[in-house]
Amino acid sequence: MMNYDSVFASAIAELKAEGRYRTFVELDRHGVEFPHATRVPGPWIDEPGVRQDTVVWCSNDYLGMGEHPVVLEAMEKAVRTAGAGSGGTRNISGTSTDHVELERELASLHAKDAALVFTSGYVANDAALSSLASGLPGCVVLSDERNHASIIAGIQHSRAEKRIFRHSDMDELEGQLASIPLDVPKIVVFEAIYSMEGDIAPTKEICDLAQRYGALTYLDEVHAVGMYGESGAGIAERDGQSDRVDVIQGSLAKGFGVMGGYIAASSHLIDFVRSNARAFIFTTSLPPALAAAATASVRHVRWQGAPDRELLQQRASRLKRLLAEAQLPVMSSESHIVPVLVGDPIVCEQVSRDLMFTHGVYVQPINYPTVPRGTERLRLCPTPRHTEREVDELVSALSDVWTRLVTMQPVAESAPAELDTVGHP
Amino acid sequence: MMNYDSVFASAIAELKAEGRYRTFVELDRHGVEFPHATRVPGPWIDEPGVRQDTVVWCSNDYLGMGEHPVVLEAMEKAVRTAGAGSGGTRNISGTSTDHVELERELASLHAKDAALVFTSGYVANDAALSSLASGLPGCVVLSDERNHASIIAGIQHSRAEKRIFRHSDMDELEGQLASIPLDVPKIVVFEAIYSMEGDIAPTKEICDLAQRYGALTYLDEVHAVGMYGESGAGIAERDGQSDRVDVIQGSLAKGFGVMGGYIAASSHLIDFVRSNARAFIFTTSLPPALAAAATASVRHVRWQGAPDRELLQQRASRLKRLLAEAQLPVMSSESHIVPVLVGDPIVCEQVSRDLMFTHGVYVQPINYPTVPRGTERLRLCPTPRHTEREVDELVSALSDVWTRLVTMQPVAESAPAELDTVGHP
Repeated sequence: MMNYDSVFASAIAELKAEGRYRTFVELDRHGVEFPHATRVPGPWIDEPGVRQDTVVWCSNDYLGMGEHPVVLEAMEKAVRTAGAGSGGTRNISGTSTDHVELERELASLHAKDAALVFTSGYVANDAALSSLASGLPGCVVLSDERNHASIIAGIQHSRAEKRIFRHSDMDELEGQLASIPLDVPKIVVFEAIYSMEGDIAPTKEICDLAQRYGALTYLDEVHAVGMYGESGAGIAERDGQSDRVDVIQGSLAKGFGVMGGYIAASSHLIDFVRSNARAFIFTTSLPPALAAAATASVRHVRWQGAPDRELLQQRASRLKRLLAEAQLPVMSSESHIVPVLVGDPIVCEQVSRDLMFTHGVYVQPINYPTVPRGTERLRLCPTPRHTEREVDELVSALSDVWTRLVTMQPVAESAPAELDTVGHP
Repeated sequence: MMNYDSVFASAIAELKAEGRYRTFVELDRHGVEFPHATRVPGPWIDEPGVRQDTVVWCSNDYLGMGEHPVVLEAMEKAVRTAGAGSGGTRNISGTSTDHVELERELASLHAKDAALVFTSGYVANDAALSSLASGLPGCVVLSDERNHASIIAGIQHSRAEKRIFRHSDMDELEGQLASIPLDVPKIVVFEAIYSMEGDIAPTKEICDLAQRYGALTYLDEVHAVGMYGESGAGIAERDGQSDRVDVIQGSLAKGFGVMGGYIAASSHLIDFVRSNARAFIFTTSLPPALAAAATASVRHVRWQGAPDRELLQQRASRLKRLLAEAQLPVMSSESHIVPVLVGDPIVCEQVSRDLMFTHGVYVQPINYPTVPRGTERLRLCPTPRHTEREVDELVSALSDVWTRLVTMQPVAESAPAELDTVGHP
């Protein structure tokens, strides 16, 4: 008979041998102000067994809204008056006034008819793309090769035909679009900001092509909403393309600091996804308190967020400049995301733990399957809540660690051909 | 060129013509005590345009833990001290002491080595089953025909071979197990309580068979945790089978009243899913405050929950007895879930809105794809928070509505053969 446990045990042993076994760092944030937290002794074999104050440099709470008083007050109030959970799917007793208000706010933010909230950005992409691409008969999906795992899942689950174009390569995208008959439904799926590189999609060029060839456009703004555009609606707003993007998908868990994902689009499209997406239909809705917190956050970021957006860019620019001056391998990035290449999973892990144990700096190593093998990196996320001094201290800490651990080792220059195994298999 | 909007519009029109367009009922629960809520005027065409007090009879907050002071206090406190969102995936800054504590509590509840929390029960099944079945080379999954959409999704996404056995049919399951070589990995997937019928799986018989033929057992206890077993660990605990079930999957959003899902199993199995399940890896973790609320709820239900478990069964028994006495078509159920057959989507919708508008009773109609066509029903969920008087009033209201709307119409006697289109396609 099968020995199941030994199968699982040897798979884990293999991950460890490859240097890509994931060690979750346990943080105690109670009473500690963002981006500060206390590391709690955990499963790293060689870590000091004491609690340690740290500065978190890898959070996607990009604006620190997850600790903003406006958000916390809205959440606390809704907990007291509406309870903890929603008690049901959206259809079966799980729609509260808080959900309806949040969806109105998101539709308004993106200047769309309607919006639909999901329990995560992953589920939003999976549910929306799988129902849209399977609901349009004969649909072909054109997908950027660097699209996120959740987009890949949604396309796969739709069973629609998929064509992958080279990252932000407009010539290839045009060639693919031109090769499909005009009357065949097509969806072009891309991201506003690619989260592991920090580069920004050519939204206008993609919308031009989609319009010429009659394709629906689906834009993942997960790493952009809150941070870009005059009202924080994202890159489509910044580039004046909001009305040309058919579906905007976003996150409530990053720039808005809470939890959940959403899409905003025309009423018919939203109603179609609402009525057909199984991962939406069969899931308990977000707690009303999270919806209330998200609404408060969106409103704040939209109307009072400009100074923080500006401050975020200042911190990111300073960090990039100082890293370059220190001759650290900062990767080119057009956004607030600052990746630093290491190129080896074991060295990446060593750098991360040395930063933590020696300098109290927390940056999780990023390895396969999140990025391609050979491009393992640190991904630094400055926020408006990091001070200039903390930026400077981070660069000193990195310089110190790099001198001791990295400079003697060969480092890959750029992403190897293995990219496909990360993105679209 | 394609007119996308017209495709979506006509799909919606078709749903409406079939009587299965879903009208979400908007509830305002702020300051209203569970199971009471205020209906807010919404999109039903013929509904009175005023706010209306209602008693909710279709919530899966089966024990009312979603409004329990112990849960609300834990959640509020964690919001104040740890913030709104977690800021990252579990691997990238999103593991807090609250998550670690919750997973320890859940492992202990189910007497397993370890547990892993997901953002929903749907994601738990999808992520766990897809990674387990694809991680065991050549694995065959044996799945009860009435398993939930999320189980079906997980099996499909694993691309493993699937065999469906007739609902709780031990002869067929044994035949299928016996036909697969002993050294081929197998997983038997079943639910403790089937949520739309309320019947309970023969856990001992299934574990006996799995043991004889060397299969892993995966048990969805989503509608049982909190409500069954001496400490609320579910049907496996009640039946003395906890140590024979390899993977117990549960919900934090129903009996525990919060949000999220989980699995509990051996450490190697949990570590395997943790390391491989993409829907887990690429998703922002639950907010620490939800984890704290869930931990408080599990502890309360576990150690002080017996009186409420008893009260829940009393309410359910009374409701079933009174419905039978009133000659209403209550379906046979072995659990606290009380389905009443209508058998037609349009009549079901009429009954539901008449209950709401005439009697202030909120029961959502359940239609395809949640149940097979022709078996549309009301699904009544009593809780310990419903009074005996409210049970009596519900039955009077149903009798009144039935006399006016249903008794003159032909009603299907049992589930037709179309079951497969709902469950495993």
